[in-house]
Amino acid sequence: MRSIVFGYQIGAIALLGCIAGTAVADALLTQAQGIFKPLPKDMATAEYPITPARVELGRALFFDPRMSLNGTVSCARCHQPSLYGTDGLPTSIGVMARDNPRNAPTVLNAAQEFIAHWRGDRKNVEDQATKALFGPPSFGEPNAESVIAKLKAFKEYQVMFKKAFPKDKDPITTANWGLAIGAYERTLVTPSPFDAYLKGNTKALSPMAMRGLSKFISTGCASCHSGAGVGGGMYQKFGLTEDYWKATGSKKIDKGRFDVTQDQADMYVFKVPSLRNVAMTPPYFHDGSVATLPQAVRIMAQVQLGKQLDDADVNEIVAFLDSLTGKLPKNFATPPVLPVGAFQTSQK
Amino acid sequence: MRSIVFGYQIGAIALLGCIAGTAVADALLTQAQGIFKPLPKDMATAEYPITPARVELGRALFFDPRMSLNGTVSCARCHQPSLYGTDGLPTSIGVMARDNPRNAPTVLNAAQEFIAHWRGDRKNVEDQATKALFGPPSFGEPNAESVIAKLKAFKEYQVMFKKAFPKDKDPITTANWGLAIGAYERTLVTPSPFDAYLKGNTKALSPMAMRGLSKFISTGCASCHSGAGVGGGMYQKFGLTEDYWKATGSKKIDKGRFDVTQDQADMYVFKVPSLRNVAMTPPYFHDGSVATLPQAVRIMAQVQLGKQLDDADVNEIVAFLDSLTGKLPKNFATPPVLPVGAFQTSQK
Repeated sequence: MRSIVFGYQIGAIALLGCIAGTAVADALLTQAQGIFKPLPKDMATAEYPITPARVELGRALFFDPRMSLNGTVSCARCHQPSLYGTDGLPTSIGVMARDNPRNAPTVLNAAQEFIAHWRGDRKNVEDQATKALFGPPSFGEPNAESVIAKLKAFKEYQVMFKKAFPKDKDPITTANWGLAIGAYERTLVTPSPFDAYLKGNTKALSPMAMRGLSKFISTGCASCHSGAGVGGGMYQKFGLTEDYWKATGSKKIDKGRFDVTQDQADMYVFKVPSLRNVAMTPPYFHDGSVATLPQAVRIMAQVQLGKQLDDADVNEIVAFLDSLTGKLPKNFATPPVLPVGAFQTSQK
Repeated sequence: MRSIVFGYQIGAIALLGCIAGTAVADALLTQAQGIFKPLPKDMATAEYPITPARVELGRALFFDPRMSLNGTVSCARCHQPSLYGTDGLPTSIGVMARDNPRNAPTVLNAAQEFIAHWRGDRKNVEDQATKALFGPPSFGEPNAESVIAKLKAFKEYQVMFKKAFPKDKDPITTANWGLAIGAYERTLVTPSPFDAYLKGNTKALSPMAMRGLSKFISTGCASCHSGAGVGGGMYQKFGLTEDYWKATGSKKIDKGRFDVTQDQADMYVFKVPSLRNVAMTPPYFHDGSVATLPQAVRIMAQVQLGKQLDDADVNEIVAFLDSLTGKLPKNFATPPVLPVGAFQTSQK
């Protein structure tokens, strides 16, 4: 009898715990749904539509190095499928081995951010793609004429541009280069377990990831890292409670958006990055100064929120961040075979 | 009655023509089977076996740029899936934008060639892969210790090397780097319509491609471009009947294998390249000095065989060469997701 009573008691406690647990879990889901959003199916807008012809063209251009100064840089140089749309470097290295000032963020889900580049000096992915052609440490092209001449050397690109921009009399332009690559990038969405969770499937996250989510919110991370991107929606000063370069050991102090606006309020201000696929895209921060995700989480809590997280906190938050990893989109995981053709002499 | 007799006569002529055509086609197939061979299923040998663990490791290493001097060069830098295993450049550009002396041949089917590199100064794909680590204009690494330290920084690579070389006490070596990449490359086979033809399916080639094959043989091309690779089986002087640099407009005279052996007989001697996938891999020749396949065919006939081909000849031979294009192997078309990790500071 005792054992039965005992069993009954344990059962009751387990049941109560379960009801309480469910209530807590439901409350967390409701809270999360108020802060975050599932990723959209794609990132098209009225102004930047996705048409199959634009996406096909943009996908080819994204992977084609032949239009760069010496034929070695495509978008995929800094946004490689194997490295989840990054280059794995602290700061990128472009054409002629020229150094870029900042870390290359992943191209995955990037089109849904409110602005492009760490300092917000590119309007959107289309603007970024076009301007990358002329960035000395990216593609390094001297002018639009040079790019256009190279594109026109490929009959297949002539046909593809015409098909992608049927109303344009002369469709091979650097603006259309950006529109096509942008259309492609607007398809690069990586839904993850966290999206399934936000849609109501509370089993999509492990208990540890849910505790991490709860801590991510209660610690204050979600006040900036929110929305569908879990970030990518606002600017913020890096180093609110102490200097970021001391905590990260960064070698070079970067004034961030101040250098764009010359506004003192923008000193050390950067775009809050999206945390989608963050577990797959080290190293971290605008300068790639931190190599591991636990360390990045620890530093963020310290310099943005004035909090010291213990190892258990960090591990749980990292478990939550792991739930933001989605599968690579098929049209990114498998690069296209490019139009056949080559230039007879080096382009340098 | 006349019309019936007439019809009968035409029928008889057509039948005779058909029998004659079949006999000609059969003779061509028999002749081709004596010169060429279908590609093997893979390119493993007793000395260089393919094991799943080696291939998996080699495939990751092939696409991983993080072990190079500044983290920008992997094997895939010069052997891109999008460009059929080439870089599309006349001559390759490696780490720190350093110039390579020669054109990067496709990695597809390369393992079955009798020797590696244009001048035969690499024994095989394994030797090539290992030595590429230290080539100043390829990966640019200073020494084995540097490569090994970088590899060991990745726990996942530690596990993968152990699995790939289970008998080795300390499996992370630059020799094993080469063995693993070689094992992967020995899987990169691209059977094409020509292989189906060689196996007896005479419908696998168009009539034009068959005429091209016939001309390829009768012109003399097949005396060097033979075997499973349609080339890749011997050395030959480039410019047997006249100087190659005059016909190609090449800017730099390359003494070829002479610079390796100092033997006068090796002056201007290069490996006869395999023509597998040649239609997809411009520009052509050791110096990439010729941009189109018809022009390359014309020049080869001229400088190797002393023959001037007319446009019809060239077009037919090109139609035959088109039949050497196979599909990209799946494990090459889709690069792997790499072990996660990054170095905190630039490797320069």
